[in-house]
Amino acid sequence: MNIKDQIIEIARNAKSASHRLATISSEIKNKALRDMADRLTADKDRLITENKKDLAYARQKGLTSAMIDRLTLKEETVRGMAEGLREVAALPDPVGKITSMWRRPNGLLVGRMRIPLGVIGIIYESRPNVTADAAALCLKSGNAVILRGGSEAIHSNLAIARILQEVLKATGLPEAAIQAIPTTDREAVNEMLQLEEYIDLIIPRGGEELIRAVVNRSKIPVIKHYKGVCHIFVDATADLDMAVELSMNAKTQRPGVCNAMETLLIHKDIAQSFLPRAVSKLREAGVTLKGCEGTRAIVPDVEAATEADWYEEYLDLTLAVRIVNDIDEAVAHIERYGSLHTESIITRDYNNSQRFINEVNSSTVAVNASTRFSDGFELGLGAEIGISTTKLHAFGPMGLEELTTTKFIIYGNGQIRT
Amino acid sequence: MNIKDQIIEIARNAKSASHRLATISSEIKNKALRDMADRLTADKDRLITENKKDLAYARQKGLTSAMIDRLTLKEETVRGMAEGLREVAALPDPVGKITSMWRRPNGLLVGRMRIPLGVIGIIYESRPNVTADAAALCLKSGNAVILRGGSEAIHSNLAIARILQEVLKATGLPEAAIQAIPTTDREAVNEMLQLEEYIDLIIPRGGEELIRAVVNRSKIPVIKHYKGVCHIFVDATADLDMAVELSMNAKTQRPGVCNAMETLLIHKDIAQSFLPRAVSKLREAGVTLKGCEGTRAIVPDVEAATEADWYEEYLDLTLAVRIVNDIDEAVAHIERYGSLHTESIITRDYNNSQRFINEVNSSTVAVNASTRFSDGFELGLGAEIGISTTKLHAFGPMGLEELTTTKFIIYGNGQIRT
Repeated sequence: MNIKDQIIEIARNAKSASHRLATISSEIKNKALRDMADRLTADKDRLITENKKDLAYARQKGLTSAMIDRLTLKEETVRGMAEGLREVAALPDPVGKITSMWRRPNGLLVGRMRIPLGVIGIIYESRPNVTADAAALCLKSGNAVILRGGSEAIHSNLAIARILQEVLKATGLPEAAIQAIPTTDREAVNEMLQLEEYIDLIIPRGGEELIRAVVNRSKIPVIKHYKGVCHIFVDATADLDMAVELSMNAKTQRPGVCNAMETLLIHKDIAQSFLPRAVSKLREAGVTLKGCEGTRAIVPDVEAATEADWYEEYLDLTLAVRIVNDIDEAVAHIERYGSLHTESIITRDYNNSQRFINEVNSSTVAVNASTRFSDGFELGLGAEIGISTTKLHAFGPMGLEELTTTKFIIYGNGQIRT
Repeated sequence: MNIKDQIIEIARNAKSASHRLATISSEIKNKALRDMADRLTADKDRLITENKKDLAYARQKGLTSAMIDRLTLKEETVRGMAEGLREVAALPDPVGKITSMWRRPNGLLVGRMRIPLGVIGIIYESRPNVTADAAALCLKSGNAVILRGGSEAIHSNLAIARILQEVLKATGLPEAAIQAIPTTDREAVNEMLQLEEYIDLIIPRGGEELIRAVVNRSKIPVIKHYKGVCHIFVDATADLDMAVELSMNAKTQRPGVCNAMETLLIHKDIAQSFLPRAVSKLREAGVTLKGCEGTRAIVPDVEAATEADWYEEYLDLTLAVRIVNDIDEAVAHIERYGSLHTESIITRDYNNSQRFINEVNSSTVAVNASTRFSDGFELGLGAEIGISTTKLHAFGPMGLEELTTTKFIIYGNGQIRT
């Protein structure tokens, strides 16, 4: 079979599986997830053997040690994957939930019921644990999933998917509910992105380049975020200790992720007292600063920021710093340079806290909290399949509910429309 | 200015207006809507004069009398538009609504707040009243709108939009919140559909051909429905009087709309007693029937249905009829031939009513009610901007809430992530 026909068959089988999955009880889905966890742990040697093939190829290709690290499956990684599956089993099932119900004047009882989206395609890079995580979230929410991982992890991904499918079969669920694309040919992704008849949603997980490539070629709706240029605005009335601590946490706790702070905005009235303290702490942690003219007037040895710095997602221990005249200028800066990801104000002023919450329309907007809380687990969604910075369907971290939609249900007793 | 630059300028101004609109109070938006209603009524002569230009051109082009009828603005039509605006003013404002809020173990208060989508492009055919309706729903939900009506209604649409803009200006709202594209050049639509940077959502309203053309060319997400192949399934235990009455209502009350019934499925155990009564009533109302072999065995003078009939949206007094063995076969027929629009079961059997509600994943699923209730007003949404039969973002009739999304808001007191 050529690649096109192979992908069409996978997608068609997924669609057919999705119809059955939509009405499977939570009990059966949860049992399958727990059995999958057991089987992954029991078959860890098989997984680690397959993973070694990927690692050998990765070394031969000369991948960096950080990339090889992300790719490696150890006993501990497999235990972590299994634990993840058990956690998903323990989450509430969104499918079938009545989100609201009301009575119409003619007696009709009208409600909205959550149902699965159908078939979800996940396109991701090197970490093999995404295979188990994404499959679990899709299964729990009643969706069939087509997984397309990076070519460097192909043996690991296929081995994980095979184990999950064996459990599906043993549980009496359709095996096509979880499918990994068995080829590393790039053409497979292109074909997949054309199949709007069978696939309802594409979620790309990876760097901006991967995501742009997917968006440009997809006929299927894509939920995505390109980058996180997250801001903290230290207002004139901020508690300075808190402002230093939150800035440190947002910048340095894990600088390589999308909800780390990239630009620090500081109210001019507080810059003289705040900046030297913050700069000293940030530099102790290894942060390189790039500042506006005002910043450099207070801390002269800071490198000058260029216009490009305000748009930059460093994903590293680098921070752009700008002094602003007031909250209006802070909000305008975020509107102009931001990426609609996550912004936080540090303030003791009630009105400014409410203005920031109401006027900044990023996907997560916080008062007196680190930007690092913009995460499905930290927000209490129980899981995270991705983050969206486009407003349609889902905006911000996506949990199980974001993998569903609602249909209208009507209970009548013979009503006609007149 | 060439068309491309003209459309970019319109879209850029819309985006800028959308930022301001997002935080305008309900009171001001409602006042603007009521003033618009007053001004449309006061300026009805100006509207009717402009409409006459469109009508003259339509007659010259030889449009059908039905099309000319849809295009015509009379005093009564203008009063209807004004009334529509007042009704939208009276609806609850979705913007700023907290849909849920919860406390995290670390003390963070996390919630989801409704915010506008941003800029919405509406592409529609001949009825000029859509200009006022769509503009009102977008304004109320805090969105800027770009209106692109049919070329045959260009004078009417521009006159309506100009009046709405005059009121925006007088109310201190950005005029670019409501813009009608001032050219009938087809290139304008193509340009508009490329501007994903400025436009957040496209809603096409019209026939399947228009919608397919928009979907094929748009880089911007499109919410759409191609067609409504709606089913009624008369179960073995149905109340026969109710089944006849609902079938009549669903087929004949307004056959030209998307929620009219197109295929009637009948349980074999009830076909002998139900079919002759239903056929006689339907024929009295002028309905032509196309039946399966079983149907023709009971009512021999019914024309034979072909495979193509099961996919057909007649939008007319024609009905396909099929006898099925049981609810499984009914659900399978709907899954195979349906359009995910609206289906209804007529039954007195509790288990079958629940199975139908749970197993049929169309956007509206009813028990003992006419398919004609699948409508924003009839379901109690207070309004309808369109119907979606794709599951992403909105599924089924869309009201004001579907023109918004939610952002996460976080109230903290210094929490950091560890």
